[in-house]
Amino acid sequence: MFRLVFILFFSTITFAQNTDSLFIRRIFDTALSEGKAYEDLRSLCKDIGARLSGSAEAEMAVYWGKNKLKSYSFDTVYLQPVMVPHWERGTKESAWIKHSDGKLKKVSITALGGSIATNGKMEGEIVYFSTTDELRKIPDGALEGKIVFINQPMDEKQIITFHAYGGCYPMRNNGAIEASKKGAIAVIIRSIGSSIDYHPHTGSMQYEEGIQKIPSAALSTAESEYLKEHLKNEKLSFVFEMDCRSYPPKQSYNVIGEITGKHYPNKIITVGGHLDSWDLGEGAHDDGAGIVHSIEALRILNELNYTPIHTLRVVLFMNEENGNMGGKTYAASSKESGEEHILAIESDRGGFAPRGFTLDGTHPMLQLLQSYSKVLAPYELHKFEKGYGGVDINPLKDYFPSISLIGFVPDSQRYFDFHHSEADVFESVNKRELELGCASIASLIYLMDKNLGNKSATHGKDIN
Amino acid sequence: MFRLVFILFFSTITFAQNTDSLFIRRIFDTALSEGKAYEDLRSLCKDIGARLSGSAEAEMAVYWGKNKLKSYSFDTVYLQPVMVPHWERGTKESAWIKHSDGKLKKVSITALGGSIATNGKMEGEIVYFSTTDELRKIPDGALEGKIVFINQPMDEKQIITFHAYGGCYPMRNNGAIEASKKGAIAVIIRSIGSSIDYHPHTGSMQYEEGIQKIPSAALSTAESEYLKEHLKNEKLSFVFEMDCRSYPPKQSYNVIGEITGKHYPNKIITVGGHLDSWDLGEGAHDDGAGIVHSIEALRILNELNYTPIHTLRVVLFMNEENGNMGGKTYAASSKESGEEHILAIESDRGGFAPRGFTLDGTHPMLQLLQSYSKVLAPYELHKFEKGYGGVDINPLKDYFPSISLIGFVPDSQRYFDFHHSEADVFESVNKRELELGCASIASLIYLMDKNLGNKSATHGKDIN
Repeated sequence: MFRLVFILFFSTITFAQNTDSLFIRRIFDTALSEGKAYEDLRSLCKDIGARLSGSAEAEMAVYWGKNKLKSYSFDTVYLQPVMVPHWERGTKESAWIKHSDGKLKKVSITALGGSIATNGKMEGEIVYFSTTDELRKIPDGALEGKIVFINQPMDEKQIITFHAYGGCYPMRNNGAIEASKKGAIAVIIRSIGSSIDYHPHTGSMQYEEGIQKIPSAALSTAESEYLKEHLKNEKLSFVFEMDCRSYPPKQSYNVIGEITGKHYPNKIITVGGHLDSWDLGEGAHDDGAGIVHSIEALRILNELNYTPIHTLRVVLFMNEENGNMGGKTYAASSKESGEEHILAIESDRGGFAPRGFTLDGTHPMLQLLQSYSKVLAPYELHKFEKGYGGVDINPLKDYFPSISLIGFVPDSQRYFDFHHSEADVFESVNKRELELGCASIASLIYLMDKNLGNKSATHGKDIN
Repeated sequence: MFRLVFILFFSTITFAQNTDSLFIRRIFDTALSEGKAYEDLRSLCKDIGARLSGSAEAEMAVYWGKNKLKSYSFDTVYLQPVMVPHWERGTKESAWIKHSDGKLKKVSITALGGSIATNGKMEGEIVYFSTTDELRKIPDGALEGKIVFINQPMDEKQIITFHAYGGCYPMRNNGAIEASKKGAIAVIIRSIGSSIDYHPHTGSMQYEEGIQKIPSAALSTAESEYLKEHLKNEKLSFVFEMDCRSYPPKQSYNVIGEITGKHYPNKIITVGGHLDSWDLGEGAHDDGAGIVHSIEALRILNELNYTPIHTLRVVLFMNEENGNMGGKTYAASSKESGEEHILAIESDRGGFAPRGFTLDGTHPMLQLLQSYSKVLAPYELHKFEKGYGGVDINPLKDYFPSISLIGFVPDSQRYFDFHHSEADVFESVNKRELELGCASIASLIYLMDKNLGNKSATHGKDIN
């Protein structure tokens, strides 16, 4: 008897695994041979372009997203109003290193997002720091009239490049505050990028109430190396002009599409990326990839006539880059509407070859996620571990304490060659790598939707 | 007592694992922060260039390799004579599609390696086939005077692109034989490439004794699509000229460097890639990456003062692409010299982010390889399975039946965008991805050298 029960139990598991294997195989086949993601990404990058919050491009991206979701026959498509910060780079952005003999060298800078302008040409002697901590240690007021240069390279020994990024983040985020405290008139940081090249990388920065705002820009890594070498033997000045500025907040939108859950329409599984991008390049990896990953994952499930148990919702978040107002608004309004949010998945680490997923959730959820490792191994997914979900979905935790957040993890090696720079264009994304990401996310949503409910999902046409 | 023994045993294992972890961490640190591989690859690609067997470039690559190994103070550096086939593309390679109304369209072809010339302009009506099998099924002589076009795309549903390559290989290798049997005057194949673009991919092809040799070329994937579409509605001709030809075999060399084993100098662990490449592009991924992976792996072990138990030998094989004379010569001469070959590792799948290793060997060896999965997991290595070793090392099996062959496995998604085409240049290789490959291979050699011997290897300066 025990033996019979055991065999029956085992057969049921085997049957479920076979069903899952076959369906996941169909997901990958669809993504790789009839996928829409690559063409959608081309369109977002080339027909819309870079799309910083508050820009006309961001507005057109909302229009693009709504039309795109409608064209894929989601059950519901709507816009969710979000007030977003509005900063513009302006038209002037030029910089020189001035040698002690007066000789000039033109260099490539980019204003950090949120920086104030220089109000005409600004010039000052450069004072070198290896890290923000080093800058913090000198006395307040010691750098009156000087221009601070912080030259912290990404730690190339880190295997996961995001860990090295995390180490450099304070330089970009707090550099202006710390430099201003010491009396500096501006701060120039080394671009946070993996390779030595001539395109600077922008990104968000902060000012602090009560601390004088100073202009803040990033210099290319190659020219940061130049500056470091020459500062060993001579005094140098930095001369630059930027006319970037902030404007009043502007109305924008999250773009949302849904496939209604058959059994639990009020229980939501969210998948998303962010629709805004920095204003350099085309926001291809950051986060055009996440946008088309998310849309394509649900489009494929729809295409394969999968009827979900829970409501599957794709959210194209606005304003992740400089305020996260889309993520915050989505979380608050989800709570207000009385929905139950059980899981959210984010793709915001580029369109590279998939490695797996990181979970911000409970141990039982980690075990559930890890139980998928075998059925997903043929697709080279091997990373199923605790970790971060994503910036856009993170605010959901404030309102739904038991929600699980999952971050999609592609290979990280090339990401910071492109990130927040003019190099982040459609051509830097590989079609197959992008498509494998879509299929990986669709597979995870399928497995989670089935296993988080206690009713079975149906394959093929709904037979009710 | 049992408990004590158990605890002692366990402590020993733990101690060994810690030692290994620390040493492997040092290998990765060295590769990522003081690596030579990227600059070596730049030099091989830019200072030498593409290097087909028998060319002046191949000869210069031998010179380059010998100098490079000498500069890294291997114990022994020498050349091993190898006779290689010598085929040259010549100077003429042009092609047109001729429409039924006489209108011409210029297209991009590349002669397949080993093809005969057209002897002036060659023209014939195109007959379309989806696969070589389809061509095989029609009666002999049915295609008198025609030009066969075989248009088999790589199967995009295959997750590992090498599996799709394997499916298309017969088209390139046997296309000329099969087409000639049917009476065709030439064969044009669709390039074996993952993406739709305008650069054709070359590669080796075969003739068969007693079957008329006919010219054989590859058309770009984008133009193959064009041809397919237009052949649906009209008769088309193909017009082309190629003056490629074969010359008598030429003297060349494998380049070899050794670090002598302390305990078993006559037991050899070989690591290598191939020094020759096709004559398009710069042979960066195929197989410049494998060359610098192999050199750098041993250079790092040397740099870290690792004294190996067995002799570690790097071999820069000549002529993998069109004859494998380097691999065959190395295997035969290893046997003749009375050496014992216990393990050979090959890198010939590109310079992409590492995934792991495939083993052509016994089950106990597989278990040994898989026992390294934990200590290598922090470096994103997750693939430890049965599979192919490599073309260059494969002949060793004929002489050393108990040898283990291991193939290094980087991510495969982008490989066939570049493979055997003008796109395979230095710029297509990412520095970090390349360096991680070097460190992965060095780590495997270190672990295998320690575990395949029954004496301990020494870390740091040799204390004897």
